[in-house]
Amino acid sequence: AVRIACELVREGVLDEKEAVLRVPAKDLNQLLLPSFDAKSKAKAKVIATGLPASPGAAVGQPAFSADEAVERSQNGETVILVRHETSPEDVEGMHSAAGVLTTTGGMTSHAAVVARGWGKCCVAGAGSISIDAKAGTLSVGPVTLGRDDTISIDGTTGEVMAGEVLAPPPRMSDEFAQLMEWADSYRRMGVRANADTPEDALRAYEFGARGIGLCRTEHMFFDHDRIATVRRMILATEEADHVKALQELLPYQREDFAGILRAMDGLPVTIRLLDPPLHEFLPRDEATQRELAKDLGMTLKDVAARVTQLHEANPMLGHRGCRLAVTHPEILKTQVRAIAEATLLVLAEGHEPKPEIMIPLVGTAKELESLRKLAEKTLAVVFAESNIEDPPHIPIGTMIEIPRAALCADRIAEHADFFSFGTNDLTQMAFGYSRDDVNTFLPAYLEQELLVKDPFQSLDEEGVGQLVTMGAERGRSTKEDLKLGICGEHGGDPDSVFLCEKIGLDYVSCSPFRVPIARLAAAQAALK
Amino acid sequence: AVRIACELVREGVLDEKEAVLRVPAKDLNQLLLPSFDAKSKAKAKVIATGLPASPGAAVGQPAFSADEAVERSQNGETVILVRHETSPEDVEGMHSAAGVLTTTGGMTSHAAVVARGWGKCCVAGAGSISIDAKAGTLSVGPVTLGRDDTISIDGTTGEVMAGEVLAPPPRMSDEFAQLMEWADSYRRMGVRANADTPEDALRAYEFGARGIGLCRTEHMFFDHDRIATVRRMILATEEADHVKALQELLPYQREDFAGILRAMDGLPVTIRLLDPPLHEFLPRDEATQRELAKDLGMTLKDVAARVTQLHEANPMLGHRGCRLAVTHPEILKTQVRAIAEATLLVLAEGHEPKPEIMIPLVGTAKELESLRKLAEKTLAVVFAESNIEDPPHIPIGTMIEIPRAALCADRIAEHADFFSFGTNDLTQMAFGYSRDDVNTFLPAYLEQELLVKDPFQSLDEEGVGQLVTMGAERGRSTKEDLKLGICGEHGGDPDSVFLCEKIGLDYVSCSPFRVPIARLAAAQAALK
Repeated sequence: AVRIACELVREGVLDEKEAVLRVPAKDLNQLLLPSFDAKSKAKAKVIATGLPASPGAAVGQPAFSADEAVERSQNGETVILVRHETSPEDVEGMHSAAGVLTTTGGMTSHAAVVARGWGKCCVAGAGSISIDAKAGTLSVGPVTLGRDDTISIDGTTGEVMAGEVLAPPPRMSDEFAQLMEWADSYRRMGVRANADTPEDALRAYEFGARGIGLCRTEHMFFDHDRIATVRRMILATEEADHVKALQELLPYQREDFAGILRAMDGLPVTIRLLDPPLHEFLPRDEATQRELAKDLGMTLKDVAARVTQLHEANPMLGHRGCRLAVTHPEILKTQVRAIAEATLLVLAEGHEPKPEIMIPLVGTAKELESLRKLAEKTLAVVFAESNIEDPPHIPIGTMIEIPRAALCADRIAEHADFFSFGTNDLTQMAFGYSRDDVNTFLPAYLEQELLVKDPFQSLDEEGVGQLVTMGAERGRSTKEDLKLGICGEHGGDPDSVFLCEKIGLDYVSCSPFRVPIARLAAAQAALK
Repeated sequence: AVRIACELVREGVLDEKEAVLRVPAKDLNQLLLPSFDAKSKAKAKVIATGLPASPGAAVGQPAFSADEAVERSQNGETVILVRHETSPEDVEGMHSAAGVLTTTGGMTSHAAVVARGWGKCCVAGAGSISIDAKAGTLSVGPVTLGRDDTISIDGTTGEVMAGEVLAPPPRMSDEFAQLMEWADSYRRMGVRANADTPEDALRAYEFGARGIGLCRTEHMFFDHDRIATVRRMILATEEADHVKALQELLPYQREDFAGILRAMDGLPVTIRLLDPPLHEFLPRDEATQRELAKDLGMTLKDVAARVTQLHEANPMLGHRGCRLAVTHPEILKTQVRAIAEATLLVLAEGHEPKPEIMIPLVGTAKELESLRKLAEKTLAVVFAESNIEDPPHIPIGTMIEIPRAALCADRIAEHADFFSFGTNDLTQMAFGYSRDDVNTFLPAYLEQELLVKDPFQSLDEEGVGQLVTMGAERGRSTKEDLKLGICGEHGGDPDSVFLCEKIGLDYVSCSPFRVPIARLAAAQAALK
């Protein structure tokens, strides 16, 4: 379609606008992801079929735990992470793997959502596969494959194949580049990416993102070298130990932020302060708890008790986001200091860093007012220490992801330089759907046509859209020039991008691999 | 204050309106609950102090599990349930106990909320008490008390005392009755009660409730005789076994509903269909799982696997409410049949039953449309079977407890005869606060004045209030005469009752013990 559109323009049949409007934005996905060679695939042996949770093709040897995936990929192997399901603890292992295969969970399971976010191939819920993680095998009927066997998974169809299927890397054609250029000239909204590492930021830039709309700082905390310090920070019973551990994390964060700011030189980088509940960083299995206890000079019982104590009935609605900063102000102070120091560092190198501090999960104006003050005070301290003459301006804003925040956006805007609509959480709370649990009933809803589409894939205009509209209108009623963006997964969905244009947002932000889709969709929305 | 107000009216100093306005509605609580005799209490030994989670006075012997509380109270003993914390599995035990004492959890913990709902005395979070449930002891420092010792707990102050402290039952004075009569003559809104059993319904009637605003059917499922059948229904792998277990539950439910309809003869009884996620009914401990497996002819492993499978990351936002009816229509059909049959039974006895069917957790108009059809079809079948000439009209409505439902209330109203605002859940989702987890940060929020009050105690006018207003206005824009009520805990909070009057609701519903407060507050709101 891309090629034909370009040819028709060359032939004078279409003008550039018509060409931009002609190509379905969703279809670009196919061009951007690796796919299996048809001939090679025809010969492959399909051993199971799961859900096409995140498109693409991946080939590698099975790894049965996140740690194994990390270790083996560090040793130069290419692995597919094979698990019953994944949780935030597996994120590093998922990142290391070429693809992810799960035996339970649906299109919105943790594995599926995280993989789609990264543009990583994932087949979810391949229920006919049995995993024996101890033995290091996966089996389907009589077929048993081990760590040394190769498997190929097709995230576009959900097929799992034994052996290696060839998958040539995708090539971005000249026509594709041409179409994108036309699209960019017609769109009104900016397109940024959600990226947490310098590598992701660079890839996003290559795909055409001009700025980061969401840099999640928690992924930095999960890193192998740092998780022990993070855990020490969480488990500290003395304030001094807590602060000490945070200070040890400071240089890591500074370095991460500096890398991203360099990668997006001259472009805005919205950094979200720590969001997940602290218990997500603690190990749940006894072996790791025992190790942690030894490291910290605590008893296993004490570690286990603290893990139990931090357990939450509904972590989604629990002690997370800016609530962490309210009860643990040192976490906010350390993160803001790391951002400020990174900014000064990158400035001194002659670059033009443009960080923005984003405070998550705000529900009341008072929360933002109080935390903004704390952040501003911290910035002032760092800038004073550096004796810089003309300290950089670092905007401070918030996510609008809690229904109450959208309803009270006029008051919240008094304390915000920008809003970024976190439509994943906004959808969870507006519908009362936990994204981790929705698989038990969402299929029935779609089948019975009680919902026309999965609201996590495509923004629900009738309900959640009202909250976004309200948040935008009320925010701008207080501050006419309030910058508005969206950083949920919806930022890469064409229908949702259309809605964002209608509401009048300034930019959309999505995962790097979806940036071209968002660019085209934003142009189409502006033209229509 | 009540006595003085009445005297001043007799003396001609105040008129009746002024008397009604003069007594703070909140203070009535003191008159309605048992309290300790001051002299007897002065001599008592306070061994620990927790949070005054639910006012009142209770005296009894400690019971260390819900089952023990049920068994011993059936044997005529008066017990205080003593637990680290409580969960929905403990509800029956809590009901059997004279009072509840927990060592963890705050003012909005499960124990506190459930106890306040019932007007049952509760001291929560008495952290200095150690419990040894196996040995059947509780200790504080050198003091150890066992199953045969008596303890007295004061839910108004949080004190836990060793030994028996005298607590004379409260008497409702003539002045109190007089004041209530005046209040009733001035109020516009109706006052109903939240009650799940015939006994609660009768007590609510005595306190002046004229109707049930919320009858929760899940409490019937937890009953000792039935829970085994409920579990069989849930664990059934064959549809036929599932339906068979449901049919066994039918007569129990019919009897329950009939009892409540008799107790509220001629008055509306709003029956909410099953709401909690099914896993709440399954045992988590291995011993009970083993027993269950034996009962069902399953292996322990299979039972445990099913429990794990039903586990949810965020049950609050999970597979519950009307979502259960979408995936398990037989549950809705059985419950509606039980309601219809109970209605016919009570009609035949010469009473005037007025049940209303309430479908919980609706978020989209389509959900209600589809489930209403199923309910209507079921009613028609039962009435046809009975050959009744003039079948009773049973209104069908919904809770508005999901933010999206409030936003889309105009479309939902097309399929509803009434709305009842479930402000507990609406508060949870609008704020993104899990009521079970909020204790970890709510104290800091109140202390730092980021919130002026606990939004679960008193309705948040600025945020959640907007959703209630929207729901009411939009609902009535579709159906002018749509009946509107509130059935969250807020229905018994004077400030919230004022807000309900302002919004123009038709009635408030609250726990039986708060009915007089609601009556007085509703009168004051109408007068102001």
